[in-house]
Amino acid sequence: MADKMVLLVFSGTIDRLVGMSVLVSGAVALDMDVDIYLMLWGAYAFKKENIGKDMEISEHQTLAEKLKSGMEKAGLKPWFESMKALKEMGNVKVHACGAAAKTWDATLENMDFVDDIVGASELVSALAEAKVALFI
Amino acid sequence: MADKMVLLVFSGTIDRLVGMSVLVSGAVALDMDVDIYLMLWGAYAFKKENIGKDMEISEHQTLAEKLKSGMEKAGLKPWFESMKALKEMGNVKVHACGAAAKTWDATLENMDFVDDIVGASELVSALAEAKVALFI
Amino acid sequence: MADKMVLLVFSGTIDRLVGMSVLVSGAVALDMDVDIYLMLWGAYAFKKENIGKDMEISEHQTLAEKLKSGMEKAGLKPWFESMKALKEMGNVKVHACGAAAKTWDATLENMDFVDDIVGASELVSALAEAKVALFI
Repeated sequence: MADKMVLLVFSGTIDRLVGMSVLVSGAVALDMDVDIYLMLWGAYAFKKENIGKDMEISEHQTLAEKLKSGMEKAGLKPWFESMKALKEMGNVKVHACGAAAKTWDATLENMDFVDDIVGASELVSALAEAKVALFI
Repeated sequence: MADKMVLLVFSGTIDRLVGMSVLVSGAVALDMDVDIYLMLWGAYAFKKENIGKDMEISEHQTLAEKLKSGMEKAGLKPWFESMKALKEMGNVKVHACGAAAKTWDATLENMDFVDDIVGASELVSALAEAKVALFI
Repeated sequence: MADKMVLLVFSGTIDRLVGMSVLVSGAVALDMDVDIYLMLWGAYAFKKENIGKDMEISEHQTLAEKLKSGMEKAGLKPWFESMKALKEMGNVKVHACGAAAKTWDATLENMDFVDDIVGASELVSALAEAKVALFI
């Protein structure tokens, strides 16, 4: 069985989501399985109506433009472009936490990339079995 | 001996603290022990004078009202209500880091839920023995 | 071989970087090896031109002054002062992620404390071998 990386994606900011996709790309390159669990703002960010539209970043708001041009120069793509490719290349599953989804009226139909909706104890079980687990 | 989840609670924002309590509830449901270590803003948030009064959230400030109504609809209680119940139900200990506590003049008397005050190496020892460790 | 703590430093805010240095000090006290990986804002923060000048904090902006005086009282030094001492005392390596560095035109010459520049899969490999791994 392949080693597993579990990412708890609490944040819905586009810079932290790029951090997520960099970690997923590294894990896929190493043939690790990846399970992403969307917590509060993560579920918000994965709603189709917010993807590519909500552009909030997590810190250093005054550097937003510099960040954008710097990331382009560095070849860092928006998280949702990377996510599409990474789900095709590797074993990457995305789970939304039930309460987080309900907070934003998020469903399997109005979110992108999400495979299923799960409860808190399933999430913690996954953490306990992971080789690597991070809260983003 | 039960598996242990260690949460380093650096943030003192009410949304991230709900993330904390969701993780604790999952761990308690799985009969895991939980040790919470309050770092900088965590120690601030657990002071009695701030609980239920300081309502800062970690991101997407313009969505604060929508978050509040969405969380009510989803049955997500304020973190301090959950924490009370979870400490009664499970083996959940809360430790404040000494330097963080001192930063805010926080003591065992003027904080809620806190069992003791510890140093940095005790915190890292706990990390090394945990089954799951996250920085929130 | 000593146990290893891996810190993924995504944030470049001075309060979270103090959290980083507290964790590093605990690990060094326990004779653990430490590998710090600078992700997006971390690479920004370690540029010489920003160290000691960019004073952004991650939350509770209105408490910035109170935080500063509280930290002084508690003996919490600025992260870059601690980092210098900790690199001398322990086995603490700092790696910048290539894409993060490129985003900010950061190089081994214009950053402080950084030992080398690495790719995403090296970072994830380090996570998989760590005793403790946290995303800050």
